[in-house]
Amino acid sequence: MIIIGELINSTRKAIKKAIDEQDVAYIQELAKKQEEAGADFIDVNAGAYVHDEAKHLVWLVEKVQEVVSKPLALDSPDPKALEAALKVHEGVPMINSISLEKERYGQVVPLVKESGSQVVALCMSDEGMPETAEDRVEVAKKLLADLDKDGVDLTKVFLDPLIKPVSVNGEYGPQALEAIEMIKNLESGAHITSGLSNISFGLPNRALLNQTFIVLAMGRGMDSAIVDPLDKKKMSLVKAAEVILNLDPYAMNYLKAMRAGKLI
Amino acid sequence: MIIIGELINSTRKAIKKAIDEQDVAYIQELAKKQEEAGADFIDVNAGAYVHDEAKHLVWLVEKVQEVVSKPLALDSPDPKALEAALKVHEGVPMINSISLEKERYGQVVPLVKESGSQVVALCMSDEGMPETAEDRVEVAKKLLADLDKDGVDLTKVFLDPLIKPVSVNGEYGPQALEAIEMIKNLESGAHITSGLSNISFGLPNRALLNQTFIVLAMGRGMDSAIVDPLDKKKMSLVKAAEVILNLDPYAMNYLKAMRAGKLI
Repeated sequence: MIIIGELINSTRKAIKKAIDEQDVAYIQELAKKQEEAGADFIDVNAGAYVHDEAKHLVWLVEKVQEVVSKPLALDSPDPKALEAALKVHEGVPMINSISLEKERYGQVVPLVKESGSQVVALCMSDEGMPETAEDRVEVAKKLLADLDKDGVDLTKVFLDPLIKPVSVNGEYGPQALEAIEMIKNLESGAHITSGLSNISFGLPNRALLNQTFIVLAMGRGMDSAIVDPLDKKKMSLVKAAEVILNLDPYAMNYLKAMRAGKLI
Repeated sequence: MIIIGELINSTRKAIKKAIDEQDVAYIQELAKKQEEAGADFIDVNAGAYVHDEAKHLVWLVEKVQEVVSKPLALDSPDPKALEAALKVHEGVPMINSISLEKERYGQVVPLVKESGSQVVALCMSDEGMPETAEDRVEVAKKLLADLDKDGVDLTKVFLDPLIKPVSVNGEYGPQALEAIEMIKNLESGAHITSGLSNISFGLPNRALLNQTFIVLAMGRGMDSAIVDPLDKKKMSLVKAAEVILNLDPYAMNYLKAMRAGKLI
């Protein structure tokens, strides 16, 4: 599993406050903790700053890269903010995200190509959020075709089927899993990721539902997730699922995590 | 999920000791705890008593039924022990288990019919343990055909695909999940159950692997499990998986379990 650590996001109150106060230590500590917990990418989001997102995103990139060796996921729909962040990011980051929406796609894909970045591609078009699993797969197919045509290496693409809350409609759970399996069966070489905590919106004990969903989604072919890596139980379940799904030969990573005291 | 509580099993040291000492309080406490934790059947096994299994199984049935209202799973391959236990069991129990092995099938199926019991049917024949998912499904099909021919209501049958440890062969995990999905797709009306803790044999933190496997197996159609229901985290994950798989409309059971402090 490719884990994208989601915690440094300015829409979260504590992060907004830390950025406001230029509290470097707080941000860096959270970055280090996520890396230590197993994040493969550290997401950075300055979207709460509508008028000077680029400036704050650049600051986050610089401060976080001072203390972690893992690449960052530059989390913004804004080409200007992404362009500025790409200039200061050392190494190859992830761009989070593009979609099939024409304006966004047209402005961000050139940045993806130029930087050789990994990229999260949301299964969403100008027609809005897709409703059924089939709708999602149609958007995924178009995204893959367009990205391939535009010269993007599909193995760097992370398709996000867009998860909706089961509290709104009970069928959203099965539909999300179905979409993941159908996208997996396209055998495009692209990864499947998801900001999966939406699944539990509106219900109590969201952590439990998120833990359960990540296991179910892995069972259908999801190989990445945008999550809180400090949830030790969730990360333990991910490691165990990798063993059961035969994605961790000889349980090497599982046993290593066990010895490091990371499995609960 | 139909939960079969596995703890009152004489092959476990503490249980053997309690039976040896006729420690009624210990056995009854364990029965009550399993029912309280959500077991739908309480398994009772006296298999450690080779020469007088029937006597001890009858004792277990009588003592356990004094304190629980849920039916028991009479856990024995021995027709004599089952027959004796059926005589004293009040209400309709589960028989655990038959298989396609001729002798066992021939002697136990009449008891199933006569008593109207639910029955666990192991996907195993006189040719031994099946190897691949396809082999399991072939045995499952024969079992279903024979049971149907012999007048057993298939909705009372719990097919057990027989789980093998991933520590022995990494493919046993994916194969087990594949077998579950294939059996589910037979749409026979039969349930799918499993003594799932075999999956983790030989690896550390077995509880974690068992928790993960039950979620993955539910994702592929397993609707029952023979487990330790006192593992509160496992039972929480089961409740959450029922919500995500839309098996718990409006999350009614989930919210009820939440209010009862059962979700961790």
